[in-house]
Amino acid sequence: MRMGLGRSVDYKKELEKAAKTMILVHEPDALIKMIVRMLVQKVRITHAGILLHDKARDTYILTVSKGAAGFKIPAGFARIDSDNPLVRFFKEGPDKKYFSEGVIIYGEAKKTAVSKGAEPRLRELAAKVAYQMEIYEAVACIPTYFRDELLGILLLGGKKSGGPFSRDELSFFMALASDVAMGIRNAQLFRELELELDKRKRLFINTTVALAAAIDAKDHYTHGHTARVTNLSLEIAQRLKNRNKYAINDKAMEDLQIASLLHDIGKIGIPESILNKEGSLNEEEHKKMREHPILGVTIIQAIKELEDAVMGVKYHHERFDGLGYPEGLKGENIPLIAAIISVADSYDAMTTDRPYRPAMQKDAALAEIKRLSGLQFNPRIVEIMAELSREDRL
Amino acid sequence: MRMGLGRSVDYKKELEKAAKTMILVHEPDALIKMIVRMLVQKVRITHAGILLHDKARDTYILTVSKGAAGFKIPAGFARIDSDNPLVRFFKEGPDKKYFSEGVIIYGEAKKTAVSKGAEPRLRELAAKVAYQMEIYEAVACIPTYFRDELLGILLLGGKKSGGPFSRDELSFFMALASDVAMGIRNAQLFRELELELDKRKRLFINTTVALAAAIDAKDHYTHGHTARVTNLSLEIAQRLKNRNKYAINDKAMEDLQIASLLHDIGKIGIPESILNKEGSLNEEEHKKMREHPILGVTIIQAIKELEDAVMGVKYHHERFDGLGYPEGLKGENIPLIAAIISVADSYDAMTTDRPYRPAMQKDAALAEIKRLSGLQFNPRIVEIMAELSREDRL
Repeated sequence: MRMGLGRSVDYKKELEKAAKTMILVHEPDALIKMIVRMLVQKVRITHAGILLHDKARDTYILTVSKGAAGFKIPAGFARIDSDNPLVRFFKEGPDKKYFSEGVIIYGEAKKTAVSKGAEPRLRELAAKVAYQMEIYEAVACIPTYFRDELLGILLLGGKKSGGPFSRDELSFFMALASDVAMGIRNAQLFRELELELDKRKRLFINTTVALAAAIDAKDHYTHGHTARVTNLSLEIAQRLKNRNKYAINDKAMEDLQIASLLHDIGKIGIPESILNKEGSLNEEEHKKMREHPILGVTIIQAIKELEDAVMGVKYHHERFDGLGYPEGLKGENIPLIAAIISVADSYDAMTTDRPYRPAMQKDAALAEIKRLSGLQFNPRIVEIMAELSREDRL
Repeated sequence: MRMGLGRSVDYKKELEKAAKTMILVHEPDALIKMIVRMLVQKVRITHAGILLHDKARDTYILTVSKGAAGFKIPAGFARIDSDNPLVRFFKEGPDKKYFSEGVIIYGEAKKTAVSKGAEPRLRELAAKVAYQMEIYEAVACIPTYFRDELLGILLLGGKKSGGPFSRDELSFFMALASDVAMGIRNAQLFRELELELDKRKRLFINTTVALAAAIDAKDHYTHGHTARVTNLSLEIAQRLKNRNKYAINDKAMEDLQIASLLHDIGKIGIPESILNKEGSLNEEEHKKMREHPILGVTIIQAIKELEDAVMGVKYHHERFDGLGYPEGLKGENIPLIAAIISVADSYDAMTTDRPYRPAMQKDAALAEIKRLSGLQFNPRIVEIMAELSREDRL
């Protein structure tokens, strides 16, 4: 039913297409800027803006094109409250007698402000609306709603060719504003969910870090051990990943982080008398101590999402030559996550004081790690340790 | 530029509007069903369906209207692989010579299958496509793409009025299919994010539960204490919420859950010799034991997201009359979260064996809680305990 000729139809089609594609673009800021820029270029108006509802704060935030004339938002008007005349006008429902099709045209607002036929309240509001439009240098304001909410207001500057907007143009802008506002709201909802997800990830990691550190603190001689092992493990994994030695995705990195944090969690089940014993352990005590990987598994194995991380806890005392515990796994049969933690754990143990011996120097510890390559440790990981040492990153 | 008369225009407008509103509806299944139903009713065709790409499994899943004729999906065809002829046909790009505008019409497929001018490979594919369309009783298949991906295929049954679809109708369906598929994909992306968020929440809670239980296990006499206190605290809070005694939102419920789980986390810092001592503690030991709320705070206070939960850990040994510790807060100055945990914690302690005394009976414990109403405990919470007891929920 819509008719149009030449360029008028072209810009409509282009804008309609852009508005539709927006659905799957989930970056609100980029989106708003793109649409405002397209409006100015395609419709050939001096400038355009969108006042968009920020639901959480119940304010309307303006995004505006610089426009051909270099239009700037006046200070203090980049954000307006929901009791701003412009917002109130659309929320209370514009009076059809004075504002056709629910759109505000600057000229009509000015006229209504002095119309003898209008109620004093409407006259006053219209005057305020007109003043607000002067601030934005807006010729037309087009509202867009979703359900009962005023989602946003599209502000249009004047046509570059001069002359008023036609009714046909305005009704096109109304449809467009609705698409745009919904696209933007959709992107915002997406963004909110993503932020919430990030927050959750942080909360989980931070809580695990805090609890692991607290458990760490029980063992007087290993203060900060868990944090150091975790950092070193992640650095090793990052380098293995860069070298494409193993396929390590984001999930694997996170599993490694959790497993490193929790690798000694089973020590909760070891009596303090053994944990903090000065001098070496007797055979009985040693046996008890060697239960800690399995005790750790017992604690977290019910958590389905941690099933890969559990491998790191369970096997971090296995040896490359198969002489480790609890199962005597050998070589590449030891899960990579555990092989990494094993090296990081041993290196940190060597370089810190223990009840039965003082800390080794870094160089001596690295030499020991190298000596045990292929015996206790996976040679590929030992290589990375050597690389880290050369770069003074140990 | 589009022209139309009467009902043709009406259904187009209605469907266009529906497709747009979809952007902010984020329930993919409901959405697909709604659109398919609208197509059948408004366009007046025998039935319609959408084959939608499931990216994770690289299959296409069919949602279909029952249609007026009670059309049913043949067994085994509710889901087709990406090497199905129909999918291959659209992915490889339909031959413009035989299939105008990238749409498949059943009649054209049949013709191509026997056309001498067509390549043998195309003839074979067209025959398979026609066979596939017979299975779905589809008269037209309309593809929709997003970037390089074949998002979905709209399947249309015959017109109820008989006769073929016009080119104008088909091009309208193409635009519609694109809107619909984008709306559905958008909803799916949303759903994925929501599921990921749920998974994260579960992971966090489950890990906290597991670690809290492990710490619990250190104290031989309190096995299962943490889980019981948490359940009772949540039940009390839910009832307070139902009675509108306090404003308790979802965030507050989650904080309470976390605080209950971690209320004794500070006991990690108390020596086992005190925790497991048989007989009563001396003054020195008692003093040490009373440090556990503050030790708990130390462990989790760095986690910004837990700042409200920290209040529960810190003040769960305060008393309503101000004689508790660590700060001697009084009455309603004690955060609700802590007041709830205090009652649940004490009740559970009373009803389980302790080194220095056997467990009390439930009735006797409740009587004691009531006696201490306004002294140790917040009377509003004691009321809830009485209610729970009457309903045999303690």
